[in-house]
Amino acid sequence: MAKEFYSDLRLGILGGGQLGRMLIQEAINFNASVSVLDPDVNAPCRKLCDHFEVGALNDFETVYNFGKRVDLLTIEIEKVNVDALEKLEEEGVVVYPQARIIRLIQDKGLQKEFFKQNDIPTAPFQLISSREDLKATHFNLPYIQKLRKDGYDGRGVMKILSENDINTAFEAPSLIEKWIDFELEIGVIVARNENEEVKAFPVVEMEFNPDVNLVEYLISPSTLPLEVQQSAERLAIKIAEDLQIIGLLAVEMFLTKDGELLVNELAPRPHNSGHHSIEGNVTSQFAQHLRSIFNLPLGSTKVMSNAVMINLLGEPDFQGLAKYTGLEEVLDMDGVYVHLYGKKYTKPFRKMGHITIVNDNREKAIETARKVQKIIKVIA
Amino acid sequence: MAKEFYSDLRLGILGGGQLGRMLIQEAINFNASVSVLDPDVNAPCRKLCDHFEVGALNDFETVYNFGKRVDLLTIEIEKVNVDALEKLEEEGVVVYPQARIIRLIQDKGLQKEFFKQNDIPTAPFQLISSREDLKATHFNLPYIQKLRKDGYDGRGVMKILSENDINTAFEAPSLIEKWIDFELEIGVIVARNENEEVKAFPVVEMEFNPDVNLVEYLISPSTLPLEVQQSAERLAIKIAEDLQIIGLLAVEMFLTKDGELLVNELAPRPHNSGHHSIEGNVTSQFAQHLRSIFNLPLGSTKVMSNAVMINLLGEPDFQGLAKYTGLEEVLDMDGVYVHLYGKKYTKPFRKMGHITIVNDNREKAIETARKVQKIIKVIA
Repeated sequence: MAKEFYSDLRLGILGGGQLGRMLIQEAINFNASVSVLDPDVNAPCRKLCDHFEVGALNDFETVYNFGKRVDLLTIEIEKVNVDALEKLEEEGVVVYPQARIIRLIQDKGLQKEFFKQNDIPTAPFQLISSREDLKATHFNLPYIQKLRKDGYDGRGVMKILSENDINTAFEAPSLIEKWIDFELEIGVIVARNENEEVKAFPVVEMEFNPDVNLVEYLISPSTLPLEVQQSAERLAIKIAEDLQIIGLLAVEMFLTKDGELLVNELAPRPHNSGHHSIEGNVTSQFAQHLRSIFNLPLGSTKVMSNAVMINLLGEPDFQGLAKYTGLEEVLDMDGVYVHLYGKKYTKPFRKMGHITIVNDNREKAIETARKVQKIIKVIA
Repeated sequence: MAKEFYSDLRLGILGGGQLGRMLIQEAINFNASVSVLDPDVNAPCRKLCDHFEVGALNDFETVYNFGKRVDLLTIEIEKVNVDALEKLEEEGVVVYPQARIIRLIQDKGLQKEFFKQNDIPTAPFQLISSREDLKATHFNLPYIQKLRKDGYDGRGVMKILSENDINTAFEAPSLIEKWIDFELEIGVIVARNENEEVKAFPVVEMEFNPDVNLVEYLISPSTLPLEVQQSAERLAIKIAEDLQIIGLLAVEMFLTKDGELLVNELAPRPHNSGHHSIEGNVTSQFAQHLRSIFNLPLGSTKVMSNAVMINLLGEPDFQGLAKYTGLEEVLDMDGVYVHLYGKKYTKPFRKMGHITIVNDNREKAIETARKVQKIIKVIA
């Protein structure tokens, strides 16, 4: 990137959801002029950017034309038209993360093969084209079936417990993966810039809500033994380097009951598992993503405080104009940071915001998070 | 305020400069729908709000019509048409800070009389209508002459050292004030909400650049003796309560060589002396202003880290399209946060941004700030 860009860089973001919104909050400090493309006229970014365009992210012409008007294009969602990004790259638009990486990560099958080729530990798997393949496989039950494409936020994933489940399995191209009886799911976010500087954020621990397969709590930093944390960080850095990515890479891993680390999935962008960094670390994941794609020196990822992040999800029984109850009560608690995502309508389990709780005492932070989660609700 | 506002509150801000910009960065977390009025088509807020209107802040009709379209009106600059605000208040628009407080603070003469009436220690003064008054006064030389209205950022202030200076003194309504040989200038920011909850931020110390009468460094927290800090905080809280203000109040004070505290000036809004709070305190001044005007519980003002704030001013010899040099070098230093204000054009001493340096070690923070100030420049 040119070094004089600060005053007038045209940054394009594909996707105008909460990740784009928090990226813009940070991009304001860099004087970037931001354009956003999103199919939803009510997208969370719509009023916060220089130029907001309504359009399909999977449409070649739409993405190509949008990209032609910016200097640097990034994403906040992987599900975008990669052919358009490759053409834009050929024509000199800088696309970070690079189109080839988005293509790889869009397809969970290619992702798994990349892990295999690069000696990145991951759960044993097999690629599948149809239910017939499932019937023929020698893979041991139970296993997990994942659609190769378009799954997100817990969708596109199915447990196959018995032969019977095969009849209702996905019919589309998918992969099946050994059911891992893991101890803990952890995450590491890494950033890498054009100067090949790489920095990992400290390991975080995730607690899932099994009903909706979404992160319920995220705890930073991890209290796992130092050698496990170091292995996880080294592994995440290795992946960023193997990919030669420019930008942020979120790496989700399982820590098995045998103490083994297995890489689950990658996301080449700011990620739900990094929201705590806004208050909990010296540099936030959003500032770090901007630093890396602008080829600026990466910021310190040091932990400033224990932080617990909880997603604020739409209550199961409500749909319509969003209302927030309990907000005052939680704002009266010390070290509680509320981030609402500007979504007009709620629906069951929709991500409407997140809340980060910081406390010098880890147990107190967790305790407060549990309280907060009981008090605050999104209804309609 | 209604308690259900979170999803759809229409917040109006008079002024679209850097204070409005940082207020918007925070208002995003509250889902507020923000409208901004500013005379400059290129104002820093222009692209970050739901509705941006170009118009004169001192024009009755413009301010009145703008205010009629919002639920809650606040300011980021005092120099606004107060008659319009009073009419809006009569008609049910919530104006915080209240119109009467803005009227009082707009006039440095009324401010001083308010101090006197409320036993708030301040430098001895006299109100003046013309140079003739100056010739007739028995006030001891040297003294300071301040225009009662419209002075800001060091403008509208003059030192009268000798009889000769009177010939070039301001001819407009002004006040003259005893020249205070102060030890230190300090600041306290206080917030107060409708529930009469009041909280002060810890005392900060300011170092002025005497050439341009602008804050050069700000150091948080102060290392003055506890009893001095407590007196300063009590004094700031007393003023907020005497005024019955809703919103933020910045109180600038002198600490004299005799150890006496004298209140210099008030600002009923987020203030340059509170920028460090974004990284340095649990709650930032911008979040606190929103909490207070929304009648939410006030946040903790606790110090998280030593923080030094420096204003990034346009270099004296440059005017035109702004360029930033040295940005990369300072971003490579630990704990350095750059905030650019989105101003397209620089001119000598224009506030183009600010930089906050955090460090567990106060001396190191100051040392880094000195380095940063030498490295980063705004030129054209």
